Formats: sequence, C-alpha cells, structure tokens
Amino acid sequence: MTYRAPIKDMLFDIRHLARIDEIAKIPGFEEAGFDTAQAVLEECAKFNQEVVAPLNVTGDREPSSWKDGNVTTTKGFRDAYRQYIEGGWQGLQHPTDFGGQGLPKTIGAMCGEILNAANLSFALCPLLTDGAIEALLTAGSDDLKARYLEKLVSGEWTGTMNLTEPQAGSDLALVRTRAEPQPDGTYRIFGTKIFITYGEHDMADNIVHLVLARVTGAPEGVKGISLFVVPKFMPKDDGTPGERNDVHCVSIEHKMGIKASPTAVLQYGDSGKGAIGYLVGQENRGLEYMFIMMNAARYAVGVQGIAIAERAYQKAVEYAKDRVQSRPVDGSMTTAAPIIHHPDVKRMLMTMRASTEGCRAMASVAAAAYDASHHHPDAEVRKQNQAFYEFLVPLVKGYSTEMSLDVTSLGVQVHGGMGFIEETGAAQYYRDAKILTIYEGTTAIQANDLVGRKTARDGGQVAKAIAAQIEKTEADLAKRDSVAARAVLKRLTAARQAFVDVVDYIAGQAKGSPNAVFAGSVPYLMLAGNLVAGWQLARSLLVAEDLAAKGEDKAFMEAKIATARFYAEHLLAKAPGVRDAIVEGAESVTSLPLEAF
Amino acid sequence: MTYRAPIKDMLFDIRHLARIDEIAKIPGFEEAGFDTAQAVLEECAKFNQEVVAPLNVTGDREPSSWKDGNVTTTKGFRDAYRQYIEGGWQGLQHPTDFGGQGLPKTIGAMCGEILNAANLSFALCPLLTDGAIEALLTAGSDDLKARYLEKLVSGEWTGTMNLTEPQAGSDLALVRTRAEPQPDGTYRIFGTKIFITYGEHDMADNIVHLVLARVTGAPEGVKGISLFVVPKFMPKDDGTPGERNDVHCVSIEHKMGIKASPTAVLQYGDSGKGAIGYLVGQENRGLEYMFIMMNAARYAVGVQGIAIAERAYQKAVEYAKDRVQSRPVDGSMTTAAPIIHHPDVKRMLMTMRASTEGCRAMASVAAAAYDASHHHPDAEVRKQNQAFYEFLVPLVKGYSTEMSLDVTSLGVQVHGGMGFIEETGAAQYYRDAKILTIYEGTTAIQANDLVGRKTARDGGQVAKAIAAQIEKTEADLAKRDSVAARAVLKRLTAARQAFVDVVDYIAGQAKGSPNAVFAGSVPYLMLAGNLVAGWQLARSLLVAEDLAAKGEDKAFMEAKIATARFYAEHLLAKAPGVRDAIVEGAESVTSLPLEAF
Repeated sequence: MTYRAPIKDMLFDIRHLARIDEIAKIPGFEEAGFDTAQAVLEECAKFNQEVVAPLNVTGDREPSSWKDGNVTTTKGFRDAYRQYIEGGWQGLQHPTDFGGQGLPKTIGAMCGEILNAANLSFALCPLLTDGAIEALLTAGSDDLKARYLEKLVSGEWTGTMNLTEPQAGSDLALVRTRAEPQPDGTYRIFGTKIFITYGEHDMADNIVHLVLARVTGAPEGVKGISLFVVPKFMPKDDGTPGERNDVHCVSIEHKMGIKASPTAVLQYGDSGKGAIGYLVGQENRGLEYMFIMMNAARYAVGVQGIAIAERAYQKAVEYAKDRVQSRPVDGSMTTAAPIIHHPDVKRMLMTMRASTEGCRAMASVAAAAYDASHHHPDAEVRKQNQAFYEFLVPLVKGYSTEMSLDVTSLGVQVHGGMGFIEETGAAQYYRDAKILTIYEGTTAIQANDLVGRKTARDGGQVAKAIAAQIEKTEADLAKRDSVAARAVLKRLTAARQAFVDVVDYIAGQAKGSPNAVFAGSVPYLMLAGNLVAGWQLARSLLVAEDLAAKGEDKAFMEAKIATARFYAEHLLAKAPGVRDAIVEGAESVTSLPLEAF
Repeated sequence: MTYRAPIKDMLFDIRHLARIDEIAKIPGFEEAGFDTAQAVLEECAKFNQEVVAPLNVTGDREPSSWKDGNVTTTKGFRDAYRQYIEGGWQGLQHPTDFGGQGLPKTIGAMCGEILNAANLSFALCPLLTDGAIEALLTAGSDDLKARYLEKLVSGEWTGTMNLTEPQAGSDLALVRTRAEPQPDGTYRIFGTKIFITYGEHDMADNIVHLVLARVTGAPEGVKGISLFVVPKFMPKDDGTPGERNDVHCVSIEHKMGIKASPTAVLQYGDSGKGAIGYLVGQENRGLEYMFIMMNAARYAVGVQGIAIAERAYQKAVEYAKDRVQSRPVDGSMTTAAPIIHHPDVKRMLMTMRASTEGCRAMASVAAAAYDASHHHPDAEVRKQNQAFYEFLVPLVKGYSTEMSLDVTSLGVQVHGGMGFIEETGAAQYYRDAKILTIYEGTTAIQANDLVGRKTARDGGQVAKAIAAQIEKTEADLAKRDSVAARAVLKRLTAARQAFVDVVDYIAGQAKGSPNAVFAGSVPYLMLAGNLVAGWQLARSLLVAEDLAAKGEDKAFMEAKIATARFYAEHLLAKAPGVRDAIVEGAESVTSLPLEAF
C-alpha cells in the first residue's frame, strides 16, 4: 500500500481539539458525532487507499493529454471518479436539500486530506466542484440552484473557477473577459481564461464554469466584475446535457507537477456568437461571490499541503526503516543499521511529522470554527467563530503549503540519491507541492489578507483574542511538571509574545508605513501559522498526558507528547527571530532602489 | 541573454574579501593579480553567456539518451565542449607542468560559478574531470600521471568518480566491487557502480574512471578499499585511445533535474575477464585518496549552489520588473505596477540576492585560504589556512546548497503561476537544485564531517579561532555610526555568540552524548554557514562604506551595504533560535521509539 490514512491522528484531533461532541450539539449535526466521524473516515480511507492512491504515480507518468479541444485524463481516472461519485463523496459536506450528506467540515476536511494525500491531481476536480457549489449556494438564483446544484453535489457534473487571464493573475482588477447582456436575460461571454484546473476533461458529462467577466459598460477595476455560470453543454429541461456552448479548450499546460490535473486555456465566444452565460447574483458583485468560493478553496488548498506532507512523510519513514547504511554514531550496533537509527534522519522525520501534525491540528480547529460559525444557534458564538475561522484561513492556506515545501524536500533528502530518481516517487511530491503556495492566492496574497483584513482592520483585536486563548493553554501547561510540558510552555510563551509584538507593530504602523508593514507580511503569516500549529500541539500534549496517565493507548499518547515537544523546541523556537526580522528589519527589505536589482 | 555573470560582485569579493593582492605575493601566483582575475572572468563570462548558457534549457527538454550502451548527449553539448577545451578552460587551476594555467582557486572558483550558472548539467563533466586530476596529482604514480594528466588537464579526456553501489551510498564501507591482482601489476575489476555522472557520453575521446574497489583478500570495511584508474579505452603508447576496456554503461537514470547530465550505471567486467585497472597510490588507501577528490568536488558543488541561486535570482528580477500586477500598497502609483514594487516581492528578491552574495563571499574567502594553504611559503600560514579551509568546506557545500533550495523555490514563487509552467524556465532551477544537497555527500554527511573531524576532534579550537576573527569584524563595525553598521553589528554579535555556545556544547558532549550532538549536526552546519556568510557580508559592508565615502562606484557600494544589512536582519537573525534548538532540543529529536514512526 502506498498510502495509509492517519485515521488515529485525525480522530484524536476531531475528538480532542475540534471537539466534535460540541459540534454534534448543533441543530442539524446531531448525527455527526465521534462515531460517525470514525465510520466515515474509515470508509474514506478504504476507498482512497485502494482506488485513488495507486493512480497517483500513473498520473505523473502519463499526464492528461489534449487533442483537438478534448482532454483525455490519465487511464484509470474516469473509472475512479465514477466510483467516487457513486460513493457519494462529492456531497459529503453539502446540504441534504440538494442530495448532499450535510456533514460538518470537521469531518469533511479530514476526508479531503485523505483524498488529496491519495492523489493530489485527482482530488483537484472535486475541490473545484466544491467551490462552484459554494458560490451557487450563496449567490445563485433559485433557478440556477435547481438546474445545477444537484448535478454538482452528486458529482455527475463538475465545476471550475475561471478567474485568471494572461494579464490578470493576483490582480483581478485587470480582468478583461466581457459579458454582453441579451434580451432574454442571458449574457454572451467573450474572452480568454488561463490556468483553469479541470477546465476540460472526460470524467463527467458536463462542466459548469464559474466565470468572472465585465458586463458591457461596467466600471473599471474590481467593482465592475460579475460572476457567470457558463456550462460546457446547455442543460436541457430534463436535466441532461444539451447543445455544446461556445467555450473551448485550446490547450493545456506542461507543468512541473500535478501533471494529471489538466490546466486549461479556455476560449469563450471564439465562434463569434459568444458563450451563453447566466449571471450569478447581481451584476458587479462577482468578486465578492468569488471570494466565497475562494475562501473555501483556500482552506482546501491548505489541506492539500497537509495531505502531501503526510504522504511524503510516510514514504520517507518506509525508506528510512528499510535502507541500511552506516553504523549508529553511539556505537549501539556493530554493523550498518537502517538509516532511521541515525540522529539526523530522525530529525528530518520528526520535522516532517511534527509539521504535518501541527498543521492538521490547526486545520481541524479551523474546521470546527467554520461549522460553529455557520450553524450554531447563538449569534454571538457564530460571530466569534467566524472571526476565528477567517483569521485562520490564510494561516491554513499559507503556512500549511509553505510547510509542505519543506516537508517534501526533506522527503527527497531522506531518500538520498534515490530521491532524485523519478522511479522512487519522492520527487513527485516535491514537484507537485510547489503549486500549493501559488494557486488560490500566493502566500503573499494570503499574507496581505492576514495583515490587511484580518489584523490591521480591527486593530489586532481578533489576533489578541487568540493570543489570550493561547495564554490559557500556557496556564494549563504551567500546572504540569513534566519535562515535555515545561519545554513546550517555554517556547509557546516566547512565540506568543513574539506574535503579540508583531500584531502591535502591524496595528500601529499599517496606516502610516504600509511598505514597512507589508515587507513583513509573509514572515508574519509564517509566525502566526507556526504559533497556532504549535499551540494546537500544546493542547494535544495536555490531552495526551492525561490519557497516558489513565493508561489509554499509551504508545500513541507518548508519541503525541514527543511530537508536540519536538515541534516546540525545533519549530516554535524560530518565532522570536522572525519577530526581530519583521519589527526591526523592514527598512532593509525596501531600501534597495529598483535599478540596483 | 538568459544569464549575465555577476562579474562586478565577483571582483569585489576577489579584491576585498579574498584579497587577491596577497595571493599574488605567493611564489607561482605572481601573474595572478586583480587584473588577471578581471581579464579571465570577462573572457569566461563571454564564452559561457554566449555558448553554454543557451544550451541549459535545451538540455532539460532533450536530455542525454542511452542506446545500446552508448550515450548521446543533448544536441549542442559536443560542440560547446569542444569550444570549452579549445579555450583551455579545463586547465585553469591545474599545474602548468601538465599543460594547465596554474591560476589560483580564488579566480578558478569564480569561473566555476559562471560555468555552472550557465549550465549545471554541462558543467558537471568538467567538475568530475577536476576531481580525477586532483586524485592523480596527489596519489598517482609517475607513469599514471604521464599517461593521463595532460589529456585530462586539456579536457581531451574526461574523468569520473565511481564510488556508489546499490548497497553503498553514504556508507562506503559497504563497497563490494572487487579488484583481482594480475601478474603484470594491473588489476581486473568486477562490479556494478551506480550514479556515475558522465559515466558514459560522446563529448570526449576517452573517459577515465576513478573507481573504488576491494583487492582480493583486503580487510572488511573502509580500510580495505583501494582506488583504481579504469580507462574506457586503453591508451596506446602514442597517447591515443586504443582497445575498449570491459566497462559498459547499462543504463542511465531518469531524474527530476540536471537531465542533460547522464547518470550512468556502469558494469565492470561483465564479459568475464574483468576491466583492466591501475592502482592509484597504495592498496587499501583508496578512501583517503577519494576524499581528496571529494573535498575538491564538495567545494565545487557548493559553488553549484551559488551558481544556480544567482541564475534563479536573475530570472526572478527580470520577471518582477516586467510583470505588471496590482497597485503598490503605499498608494505611490494609481495603476498596476511592475511587481518588483510590492514589498513582499522585494523581500523575496532581497532574500535571494543576499543569500547568494553571502555564500559567494564565503566561498571566495575559502578559495583564498585554499590557495594560501597549498602555496604559501610560510608553513605556519599554510597550516592556519588549511584548518580554515577545511572548516569551511562543509559550510560551502552544505549551506550554499541548502540555500539554493530556498532561493530557487523563491524564484518559482516570484513567477506565480507562470513559475510552475515548464516553458518559463524557473521550475528547471528548482528541479536541478535538489540534487545539490545530496551528491558528493548529503548535507547530513557534511554536518557529520563538521561536527566530528572539524569541531569535536580539536575541542572546537578552529571554530573558536574563527569566532575570534568575527569579533574583530564586530570591533570594526562598532567604530562606525551608520545605521546599517549598527544593525549588522547587533545581529552578527548575537549569531557569533549562538555559534560559540553550540561549539562549546558539541566539544563538551561529543564523547558522552553522541546522539544528542549529532541530532543537532545539520542545524549546527546551517548556523555556522549562516554566520560565516553573514560575517563576510559584514566585511563587505565595511569596505563598501569606505569606498562609498570616497565616492567610488557609489550605487554599487550602497547596494552592497543594503544587501549586507538585509542579510543580517533577516537571515543572521535566525541564529539564536537555531542555537536553542540544538542546545536544548536534542532529546526530542531522538526520543520517539522506532515503532512509533
């Protein structure tokens, strides 16, 4: 087996950090307790380990291919996707009204990790469909909902996000695709979209493009952008795909990784009459709606980072236990030993493990906050959870994906020379991961969001509220006298103080010295992500110490404690240095004149 | 032009840090002053920019290929190599006795950077030849020298290093290739070697393999390994290649990067009679000789890291100046601006630039120490320089190559989505760089060397001597009242103190707690490399301030100052956190039991 879902760790997070029992008290989630989580995760693991994971390497070696406007996906993908929708996996988190299962994100996000770990390229198709569903649920008319949602929730049809154009990447103000209103209330869409994930493929009967475009006469900039549904085939009244719409895939990209996932260039209205599009919500509010699907997608991409890190970790552990090379430095063996006995290999594996578990724990509490923010009966609780979730989204996206670069790099490193040979498979994770810090908003875009909307706007209030929660965990740690708890307390305190210093700096300087503040935006994101992940592992340690003391699953709990301690001593320990770089180092980021580069 | 050699920065280092005028006082190097350096670098830049650099992308897209035991290199390589040897570039640093130009490493290493930046895959062939020359110069008999050295120094024949076998990678004690002594004094070699760079190719008339093997009856382990010359074609007495030897390339690897460089599996003695080999030096001392060529190669691989970082930096700067996207956060422009105006893009570019310049400066002073250690008339000076150089080799190799992973990753990141598309070219640097932390000894192997042979063995004496030199630079900085000098002083002092703490820890614990010490070996290497690179940039700042005050090339000097300051505030600032992780975090690296992974 090439991948084994870390169900035990996931369930630990779901029960003890995300506190699923609290989620299950929320009306609508009564059935979504721990037992459900366990049953769903086990089923999910089984399907993905057996069906989806084996196609990961195939997809890398025999990528999707383009011919005459059609994309043929990697052999095996079509069949696996059919099984995926038959299993009802696409509807996991979506409303029962449209055929979904209505499970909380607290469970759904872990299933997302399993699917992505099994096969990042394959998982992108459902991930984009989720985004389209989200946008239609939020802003679609009843007619659009009726026509598209069931098909999308079942997975029979898939969705895409059409934002990017050659001149408009991070800067959507530059979008030029145009929409001409028609007398019948529809629009005709003209333009070129690039980097469209699963923009064309052969796994589903229809593709529902969500497209940003400017209505004729709309204002310049971001306030003149509208969102449209543009189906590949016009749905007939009986719900089956009808006439072909004027949107065509003119090529797909040759990429460094996620090669099985077709990245399409889509041409709208090339025949001259325009592609038929349906307005989602109101004109000129497209970006607002797009951000809804983008926020869901950003969280999901963060989970992709965790997923590929986990898979890289598993592969590295397997190799390190198997590969025999050199005697241990402590003289404990007189012959060459499996390399996992060497301290630096352990350091690499522990870094991979702790980073992955830390980010998973962070994503898990974010998911619980999302569920509470959407479904809790108490408005005040919803509001608090919403603020917490929104603060965490850029961390889950930015920090987990940057983390995945380090982890997949270490994964190759553990393999030595074999890691550089494509047959081994470790290199694929390294190549695949690099897109994660880029798409759905680069790390810098996440950091802008964190600095601007999530920190400066409220003067650091939400950030400080999180710091106050961390102080409570510190107080709990202070009551313990274990070596591990003391070590974690020391690093967590220092990291939290570093974070608060930076928050004060940002809140104080954002208006007067925007260049200085944004010069430290990505370091701030990395510091905040590091802190929140380390904090969640600190919480894990508290739980694990209690359970170990009761004799419950001792080996697992001790590993959890050791991992939390490693995280604190080796990763949280970086936080004060980052603080210094942000608070004292802004000038040297921006002082060099353009010509000097 | 895809690459422009940073000659100005190189000459700054050569003049002010490596102090070529001192080198030129050494007997034999009288002609090798600054003017020679400048003339050689300019010629080198011209050749590589025009001839070698354009083949870099070709090599990635049309790698070397294998058929029936023969390797055809990428179209254009053969011709470029012919021009390379016609230009006399192979002999640059080699003795005039064998047709070389006898230039110091202080100049040669910079030429190495230019060649590698132009084309990493191409440059590997000469790099390996250099290693073979080094081994023969040190340990070869007069007959071997006479038969092979001129051909290698001219580049007419190329060299290889045959160490690795499927079961023997980092652990050469496990080498099984055997050598059977013959009555005529030759040996017959039998075995399989893997990962042999340019082990077979079509660019030269002959290939001279340097091969580790065990003579029949030799002791187990590393003390039973001998070194042999095994030519592809047996040289005739007139110096031309004669009969084909029984060494054959049975396949080449499919790798993530450096695809144009053929990585061969070589089979020795497959026909049954064995490949004819000639002993280098004495039996069973092979590893010792191999380390000579490996040390030269390790330094050279460090330079590869600097080279690819420089090239990635140049490409990223070009894109950042060209790509227009979003308005600046400070409101200084009302329309979208080239992305280099955005603070985080500047932060990425500054990180790339400062890392590259810092490592180049470190490699430059190491090269000067090498020259003095080999050629200075005063034995005491030779000895001190030798110790300094040997301490720096693992830093140049380990730190510069790890740095290149970060820099090439940032290079992709600056390009956004375009970076992930292979056509852009940034992805190639990312893929190519990953081998650098692995071959010629992984970063962990470098770190073992640094901890064991370079730090613990002398109780930290050399390390402390370097710290004392750094304190002198601090004293010089303390006399300045510029903001930049004060900022650098603060971070340099903290980093040096962190380093000394770790040295004390290692010297004190190495015997009693080897696991704890080696758990921090790579972090120690990274800390030491970071410190030495930052120190050299601090020295640059002192020089640049003086020259700027005199009005000499002011823009360049100010950029040098800004880069040094950035390095201190953003990279050196990490040092204390690393100290903490090493000195207080060893237990959590090794505490998890094997079964828990």
